[in-house]
Amino acid sequence: MTTPTSTPAVPRTGIWLIGARGSVATTVVAGCAAVAGGLQPAIGMVTLTPHFAGSGLPDLGSLVFGGHDVVSCPLPKRAEQLAARGVLPYDLPQVVRNELAAADAEIRAGGPVMDDLSQDDELISRFADDIASFRTRNNLVRCVVVNVASTEPAPREGDERLPASSLYAAAALRAGAAYANFTPSTGLHHPALTGPYDVPVAGRDGKTGQTLLRSVLGPMFAQRALTVRSWSGTNLLGGGDGAALADPDAAAAKNAGKARVLADTLGATPEGVVHIDDVPSMGDWKTAWDHIAFEGFLGARMVLQTTWQGCDSALAAPLVLDLVRLLARAHEVGLTGPLPELGFYFKDPDPRAPASLSEQYVALLGLAEQLRAEHT
Amino acid sequence: MTTPTSTPAVPRTGIWLIGARGSVATTVVAGCAAVAGGLQPAIGMVTLTPHFAGSGLPDLGSLVFGGHDVVSCPLPKRAEQLAARGVLPYDLPQVVRNELAAADAEIRAGGPVMDDLSQDDELISRFADDIASFRTRNNLVRCVVVNVASTEPAPREGDERLPASSLYAAAALRAGAAYANFTPSTGLHHPALTGPYDVPVAGRDGKTGQTLLRSVLGPMFAQRALTVRSWSGTNLLGGGDGAALADPDAAAAKNAGKARVLADTLGATPEGVVHIDDVPSMGDWKTAWDHIAFEGFLGARMVLQTTWQGCDSALAAPLVLDLVRLLARAHEVGLTGPLPELGFYFKDPDPRAPASLSEQYVALLGLAEQLRAEHT
Amino acid sequence: MTTPTSTPAVPRTGIWLIGARGSVATTVVAGCAAVAGGLQPAIGMVTLTPHFAGSGLPDLGSLVFGGHDVVSCPLPKRAEQLAARGVLPYDLPQVVRNELAAADAEIRAGGPVMDDLSQDDELISRFADDIASFRTRNNLVRCVVVNVASTEPAPREGDERLPASSLYAAAALRAGAAYANFTPSTGLHHPALTGPYDVPVAGRDGKTGQTLLRSVLGPMFAQRALTVRSWSGTNLLGGGDGAALADPDAAAAKNAGKARVLADTLGATPEGVVHIDDVPSMGDWKTAWDHIAFEGFLGARMVLQTTWQGCDSALAAPLVLDLVRLLARAHEVGLTGPLPELGFYFKDPDPRAPASLSEQYVALLGLAEQLRAEHT
Amino acid sequence: MTTPTSTPAVPRTGIWLIGARGSVATTVVAGCAAVAGGLQPAIGMVTLTPHFAGSGLPDLGSLVFGGHDVVSCPLPKRAEQLAARGVLPYDLPQVVRNELAAADAEIRAGGPVMDDLSQDDELISRFADDIASFRTRNNLVRCVVVNVASTEPAPREGDERLPASSLYAAAALRAGAAYANFTPSTGLHHPALTGPYDVPVAGRDGKTGQTLLRSVLGPMFAQRALTVRSWSGTNLLGGGDGAALADPDAAAAKNAGKARVLADTLGATPEGVVHIDDVPSMGDWKTAWDHIAFEGFLGARMVLQTTWQGCDSALAAPLVLDLVRLLARAHEVGLTGPLPELGFYFKDPDPRAPASLSEQYVALLGLAEQLRAEHT
Repeated sequence: MTTPTSTPAVPRTGIWLIGARGSVATTVVAGCAAVAGGLQPAIGMVTLTPHFAGSGLPDLGSLVFGGHDVVSCPLPKRAEQLAARGVLPYDLPQVVRNELAAADAEIRAGGPVMDDLSQDDELISRFADDIASFRTRNNLVRCVVVNVASTEPAPREGDERLPASSLYAAAALRAGAAYANFTPSTGLHHPALTGPYDVPVAGRDGKTGQTLLRSVLGPMFAQRALTVRSWSGTNLLGGGDGAALADPDAAAAKNAGKARVLADTLGATPEGVVHIDDVPSMGDWKTAWDHIAFEGFLGARMVLQTTWQGCDSALAAPLVLDLVRLLARAHEVGLTGPLPELGFYFKDPDPRAPASLSEQYVALLGLAEQLRAEHT
Repeated sequence: MTTPTSTPAVPRTGIWLIGARGSVATTVVAGCAAVAGGLQPAIGMVTLTPHFAGSGLPDLGSLVFGGHDVVSCPLPKRAEQLAARGVLPYDLPQVVRNELAAADAEIRAGGPVMDDLSQDDELISRFADDIASFRTRNNLVRCVVVNVASTEPAPREGDERLPASSLYAAAALRAGAAYANFTPSTGLHHPALTGPYDVPVAGRDGKTGQTLLRSVLGPMFAQRALTVRSWSGTNLLGGGDGAALADPDAAAAKNAGKARVLADTLGATPEGVVHIDDVPSMGDWKTAWDHIAFEGFLGARMVLQTTWQGCDSALAAPLVLDLVRLLARAHEVGLTGPLPELGFYFKDPDPRAPASLSEQYVALLGLAEQLRAEHT
Repeated sequence: MTTPTSTPAVPRTGIWLIGARGSVATTVVAGCAAVAGGLQPAIGMVTLTPHFAGSGLPDLGSLVFGGHDVVSCPLPKRAEQLAARGVLPYDLPQVVRNELAAADAEIRAGGPVMDDLSQDDELISRFADDIASFRTRNNLVRCVVVNVASTEPAPREGDERLPASSLYAAAALRAGAAYANFTPSTGLHHPALTGPYDVPVAGRDGKTGQTLLRSVLGPMFAQRALTVRSWSGTNLLGGGDGAALADPDAAAAKNAGKARVLADTLGATPEGVVHIDDVPSMGDWKTAWDHIAFEGFLGARMVLQTTWQGCDSALAAPLVLDLVRLLARAHEVGLTGPLPELGFYFKDPDPRAPASLSEQYVALLGLAEQLRAEHT
Repeated sequence: MTTPTSTPAVPRTGIWLIGARGSVATTVVAGCAAVAGGLQPAIGMVTLTPHFAGSGLPDLGSLVFGGHDVVSCPLPKRAEQLAARGVLPYDLPQVVRNELAAADAEIRAGGPVMDDLSQDDELISRFADDIASFRTRNNLVRCVVVNVASTEPAPREGDERLPASSLYAAAALRAGAAYANFTPSTGLHHPALTGPYDVPVAGRDGKTGQTLLRSVLGPMFAQRALTVRSWSGTNLLGGGDGAALADPDAAAAKNAGKARVLADTLGATPEGVVHIDDVPSMGDWKTAWDHIAFEGFLGARMVLQTTWQGCDSALAAPLVLDLVRLLARAHEVGLTGPLPELGFYFKDPDPRAPASLSEQYVALLGLAEQLRAEHT
């Protein structure tokens, strides 16, 4: 991640993380350094498979990190906490300490804090300035802003202020940065931010676990003409997201995404609800149980159950790195607006995206091909 | 299933079932009558979805059933047993009693029995004659032979006689009937029967449960670049197949199919074995537990478990009906040899078939299109 | 269930079921006849194990059934519905049709209906009269009233009327009948009905599935000194109880019982909640998933998951028959008030009952011994 | 673990571990130091619950460790490996390095190696001398020998030599040390070692996971008079034991213990088998899936499934520490021979022990009471 002085510098791309000191962001920064340095294999990064060779995506080593957050615990310390809980390898925080510290130095105080009386526009400008100065200071060719903060409550009816996630999204647009919303928060899904956009954007709500499964199991039932009677799910998770999503308002957007994949792949919405439980002792680990009651020939009753036990940060981080590489390159070749080809990554993708994972994968490979064709 | 006399008769297609009094065959015959008569919805039949409209597949009402078996319990009685065990709807055996009796009247004694000293060729001829006279007697335009018998032991090395499943397969070829092997038995996978064939053929080993799941989960892990460390499975099943497959020799072919889908979709064979346990009290119901240990970003260890509880006959029967419709039509338009487009239905498909269910589904829809184009 | 005329009649005991046309009641009546007649083994009836020999419990053949209900579908018809759904054996409704019809003839209209303006005391009297005349008409030595109706909503604060379950409980007391509350409804747990009672009583909320498991798993963790961090549960159920318990008010009492067994056996209440989901397509079948995160030596994190798939009526009915036999005999020998020895059967037993199933079983065997000692 | 010089020394007890450098032994030594030093809570140690106060069991701080092993990797290094795999807390190996090194210095080369032509009696004597000199050198009041080595193959018929585990057991007896066999290996279960013994002994095969569950679930079904039709299980485990037990001969003894608890608690042996799969990537973590098909009232078919995910070393180590404390005290008060009161800890306990965990727990508390009564 250093720039040689005697040869032309590799162009560097900025990654501006909203929630830059959270578990996902810490894993993104530490993991990027580890994989770029050859210390860890690139497990979970789709854009490092051979299908993306020659598509002109920026190297991991050329990424520069910064972001907004409201907490102050520095990244090296956060990484140690994650290692003690088994999320990061034992010795990684020490090995990539310099990279963590460098990213930490580029984190700015986020907001808005509860008692901030600034107008929305002032806040957007302040955040956009932070992004712009990050770009200038680091001599970056372009920036990608990614929201990886905790889920925010759904906006109350009649509330005229933009939710925080939308302020940051608007700041990205104002700063001319590509934007991805990896959370179920509002972001660009706000009447005030309907576009058109001058940059490529993607979202929302990263598809990391239960919904990933649903996006392959739903099509299986549909392709086999089996009738799904009910699809029930329970998620147990700790960490910040457990507490945030235990709030029914915050969970509403997330659950909408989970339901959509079923409706879209099955052609009908089955019985059953999804629960999201805050279980603090689970920490960064998430368990999702799904119970699917379906009918076969002559009405025979059958059941499929799945239990997914995953580490949310480890599932999210490589997808975030994929997204920033793809958006940076899309920006470079002049693509703008929502990219339906990135539906592979999201629970609630652009409406033009197909709903089944396999079709989304085909679309993603098509984007890789398109970006390759643009290569100069 | 009656032919009007004053208008040109609908051409009728014969379905010759090897194992014609087994649970799958009984469900095929009873279910075909129920769905053809509008008594039951066509759950699980892929060829009755709109994608296959206009492809010229024979109507269910035009199918005529017969077959070979070594047991003598008549089909109406078998159907009552299945209804008492919840496999068939309570009142179905009574409602379709005539159709069951008609099919039963077309069942011929199978073989070879242990002490039959006939030469293989004599047996093949006898079986082929049974099929040919079935066709003549019922004025059928063509026949499809499907093996739905219990799994046979793997052939012993040095045994020069053809296994029973291969004798029946050879008889189908000799009688000019299309052929599908829905079991893991040898069938056409014998050095003496390598083709080329004058009829369309398909096989082997119907993909009804655990492997169906694997054919969508394997690609999910691959597309997400997640490393599967181990994939372990246990199947509990009763019925005849439980006993047959508890024999390691018989299970070998089945397990080979299960392993192949993982190797083909993951690009490597993970640790882990598959057990098939005979649990007689499970009856026709099968439970399959899969445990998949995988690694994510930075080596994070995660686990997916699936439990599939299904009724084998109800899963198999609609696929058998799909296959006979597709093979009959393929035969009609002149296709010959193995059809890789039918890989959707099999654990161990033609080697040219893709391994993921979604690609197999695309190939199947392609066949529907091809058959539609041939329509006169 | 007939009384010989020339020899002294076997004393007959009346069973008055609140919710007498529900699934549980129908299974109780049909099953009692089937087991008494030797048509079915006595699976699930603890009082028919050898430990209860000589305790003087009334024979199943000496029980006479009646009850209150607000629906009118006759019992023989209800039994056929249950057989079609696999809850009762295929042919049982026909075989025990006479016994079902006899019980149905003893069912009286329950209440209170919404617009009934009668005072509580009038209703109690009317119900008590129904019970008393049932006893007289059938020449019964005593009666046991059991609530097996759907769960009622929790009483609203400030509502001065007795909930329906308490009206029936009061009617039982007024009629001098022993009483058991197999549901989570209020019953005798009302300030107006605190006792003392002249009859033996038992309750509340039959322990049939998830809580049964918890009452053996909780003690296991405690005895092994393992620390349970969280205990989360999801119940999927259809039928009437699914709809009733999806109402958070109705579920509150049930969940209190489930939580109590954990607190009592673990010595502390772990994290985690219990969900009860109404999934109509599950019908009479219930699935309960429990996820238990626990810590071992040196803080090692471990997990136990359980999935229980049961038929509620089949689980409840033999326990109801156990309870009426035990309460009838307890009444005969003069026991009065709550019997903590029956804690084995309840989620929310008398506070003096131990919480672990094994200790509850020991207490139950002690009661069997006590009743045996009273035998004359 | 130091001895003050000016006051009377606390009597010290020696713990001689067969397999002293294995995962279980390493966890025992490190964990004993951590708990004795107040660095970790005593999770999983039953003898540190209040029920055992005043029973005169030796303090953890008074235990001195040594043992036999055939591998040479020193304990501090082994502990680091376990910490890197999440079995021991991150920083524990460093904190208890001195205690690990002290134990390591007391480990002697085990045997017999393949080409050792010594007679059994010579080997027994050599091992007994190792134990005796450990006692003398450390001024120990008594010793307890515990087998925590990998499972050995079942002895071949006609093999006249004692298996290794029996040589060590005989050496313990010869050295006058109490003995516990925490593995399914032969140990004292050999015709040449039938006793009587001068010391207290216990075994065999520690009950840590799947069988622990079975010992509470089996009684639950029995007490509720439910008929278990089949009980099937699959164990996935890595580490040394995974490889050892994948050998059917080695697994035979272990499976016999697992089956016995079902037969003893259910009163009959249900259908179903137990698989033990070697899955190296699971490392020290074990997953056990159990599928229990049972029948309720009127033959209703129901299913319970359990999935246990545990760390074997963390489950075993506190039980080993319990056992050595109990055996040392039993030895002190003059108890000899097999102690059925220790059945709580074993899959294959003394035949006089009850089979249900709750009864075993009552028996254990009785032993605590007996040892308390002996206190001087």
